[in-house]
Amino acid sequence: MNFLNEIAFRYPDAVSFAPGRPFEGYFDTTQVHDYLRRFEQYLKEDKGYSDEQVHRTLLQYGRTKGIIHELIAEHLHVDEGISIDPESVVVTVGCQEAMFIVLRALRSGERDVVLVVSPSYVGLTGAARLVDMPVLEVAGGPQGVDLDDLETTVKEARARGLRPRACYLVPDFSNPAGTSLDLETRHAVLDLAEREDFLLLEDNPYGHFSADGERLPTLKSLDTRRRVVYLGSFAKTGLPGARIGYALADQSVRGIDGRVGLLADQLSKIKSMLTVNTSPIAQAVIGGKLLMHGGSLLKANKREISVYRENLACLLKGLSRLFPSGGDSGVSWNVPRGGFFLVVNLPFPADDKLLETSAHEYGVLWTPMRYFSAKREVANQIRLSYSLVTPEQIDLGLERLAALVADRLT
Amino acid sequence: MNFLNEIAFRYPDAVSFAPGRPFEGYFDTTQVHDYLRRFEQYLKEDKGYSDEQVHRTLLQYGRTKGIIHELIAEHLHVDEGISIDPESVVVTVGCQEAMFIVLRALRSGERDVVLVVSPSYVGLTGAARLVDMPVLEVAGGPQGVDLDDLETTVKEARARGLRPRACYLVPDFSNPAGTSLDLETRHAVLDLAEREDFLLLEDNPYGHFSADGERLPTLKSLDTRRRVVYLGSFAKTGLPGARIGYALADQSVRGIDGRVGLLADQLSKIKSMLTVNTSPIAQAVIGGKLLMHGGSLLKANKREISVYRENLACLLKGLSRLFPSGGDSGVSWNVPRGGFFLVVNLPFPADDKLLETSAHEYGVLWTPMRYFSAKREVANQIRLSYSLVTPEQIDLGLERLAALVADRLT
Repeated sequence: MNFLNEIAFRYPDAVSFAPGRPFEGYFDTTQVHDYLRRFEQYLKEDKGYSDEQVHRTLLQYGRTKGIIHELIAEHLHVDEGISIDPESVVVTVGCQEAMFIVLRALRSGERDVVLVVSPSYVGLTGAARLVDMPVLEVAGGPQGVDLDDLETTVKEARARGLRPRACYLVPDFSNPAGTSLDLETRHAVLDLAEREDFLLLEDNPYGHFSADGERLPTLKSLDTRRRVVYLGSFAKTGLPGARIGYALADQSVRGIDGRVGLLADQLSKIKSMLTVNTSPIAQAVIGGKLLMHGGSLLKANKREISVYRENLACLLKGLSRLFPSGGDSGVSWNVPRGGFFLVVNLPFPADDKLLETSAHEYGVLWTPMRYFSAKREVANQIRLSYSLVTPEQIDLGLERLAALVADRLT
Repeated sequence: MNFLNEIAFRYPDAVSFAPGRPFEGYFDTTQVHDYLRRFEQYLKEDKGYSDEQVHRTLLQYGRTKGIIHELIAEHLHVDEGISIDPESVVVTVGCQEAMFIVLRALRSGERDVVLVVSPSYVGLTGAARLVDMPVLEVAGGPQGVDLDDLETTVKEARARGLRPRACYLVPDFSNPAGTSLDLETRHAVLDLAEREDFLLLEDNPYGHFSADGERLPTLKSLDTRRRVVYLGSFAKTGLPGARIGYALADQSVRGIDGRVGLLADQLSKIKSMLTVNTSPIAQAVIGGKLLMHGGSLLKANKREISVYRENLACLLKGLSRLFPSGGDSGVSWNVPRGGFFLVVNLPFPADDKLLETSAHEYGVLWTPMRYFSAKREVANQIRLSYSLVTPEQIDLGLERLAALVADRLT
């Protein structure tokens, strides 16, 4: 990723399909003030806080598990149909901190390993590296997760003396592959986790961005056996600049003191040694946004959802035009049902060298899929991110990509 | 610390000398709006940013090392006489994250250990536990650090095959002991670090709060050989609710890729896997406060400095009145030159059981010094924090403490 950032810095005028950042067109810093004021009003009117209590809540050190847990519970109820105890929520510094503290809690020794559905988000593998926890790749494939491979990987790991503690996956519009699990697979993966006794780490940053309006239930909403730790992010649905995420961990676990309690409380202890608590000012920004939309980020993101839908349509149309089926380009791609990402298969390897050429000679940036997997299948694949581009940029970028492909093939 | 929090929760009406939190009397959430607007003005006028760039800077994902590094450099110049390259600053989620990423960077294997001047801030030992790095205690004593013990501990560790990577200390008005290093000791500890080849982790949350107006140079300002990694906190001088700290790490190190670069850049890589970047909104709050006071937090904290000075005077006066010298109470205490904390020696052990009695029967809370050290010397000691109390509460709390002592001794 460092190379990609460097390239992006060196070629600022290139059309970039690289960053997985949300659309900026509706960004406005006056919203921050509005959200903060709305949250203050909530503290006063709904919570009955005095001015002094409001100042203390926002400006002083605060609760390690956070101050917007009740609003997050309401949001999960409204948008995901999940009913939870707010005490099982730990508000974190982005979803990245949630990943770190969950892995740190699951790692009790050298035999503990985490599984990831491949190709996988680099944030999870980075967090695993920081906690010295080995990562085992499980095949994803077009269905989002290869259940046979998942079961085999768990069993083989056990046979080698390892403890597979959890499997990380993004069931909806995954990063980087853009795939989604169908309903049957969701039930099957929950059954497998129960049967083989491991947790599922469900990461859901893109679930709101369905292109066709259809949304499948999250694993957490189907989780009757507390197998799912849900990793929440407000970076794409709230504001990236608030850096607010959360872990929803309603499992009962025995702590080092022998007492049984919520996994969320164990996570809180780890967080207290990592960042103490998440900025209440930053939490208030997200809290205010939730309050202003009745807890629904689906409502709050109506305009953004349209942008992503139209961008995906534009991208698919452009790909079909430039690489017609039956043509001899050897280029193919998947058709995601939403999210930010699409994967293109090129007829030649896509590595850092090709990326450099693409940037320098053709003015188009993308992400090599080999950043997200060690498996050979991804060697010719690139990820196109369509969240931060305009339709005009999509057309221009695809034309440049087509020129690169044409030149390579002659 | 969990027990203390629990006790504080159960006895909300007790006078509390426990929390090391800054004075709240001048808290006002309207400041947050003012600071944010001032920072926006800076981006537009000083940096020449367009509205779009301002929105992106505050609301989008951002630079891992942060966006207020130049303002921090200015602040260090104005308030500490330290001249630095802003590129050597990593803005973090409070000083706690800075401690974690520094220790994580210093730990390359099981032989790496960190030394702490004892009694020591629990945040550092917590971070060390999270990175699985053993902690060796070095005697502090009335001078703040026992140089002979420091040298012996380093040499003995080496003899045992360990690698002492760094020594953590708070040279100014330390937490929990309230001690300060004199100038001679500052030079001596720098010489020792050079001679024995380890780093000093200088934590400076309280340096602005001198009671008599005298401030000694920080280790970093005396550091001509890049032996000091400076850990900065805005929790006490800025706003705790922003959760902004930083690491100043201008050392040259060889990374895993073989390239030599700034330690700050290594820290940045670790941070990218931990929290990605610190909320730019939260950074802007601190940035705005710095801008509104010409980079000087000494100026910004004029009123708070007075409060702490008066509270310390009140506390010392009360102690002298209630436990007169030559009396038979057996109670003694140190006389800090500033900061938030003072240590009282009781004529009997001060443990959780006594704390419970103190809260329940006498209505006064304090922190057992054994929370901060495994050494026997602290068994009878308690920490009194005077930052969050009024003079009236100090008098009342001390009378309650005196009643506890009197009852114990009869």
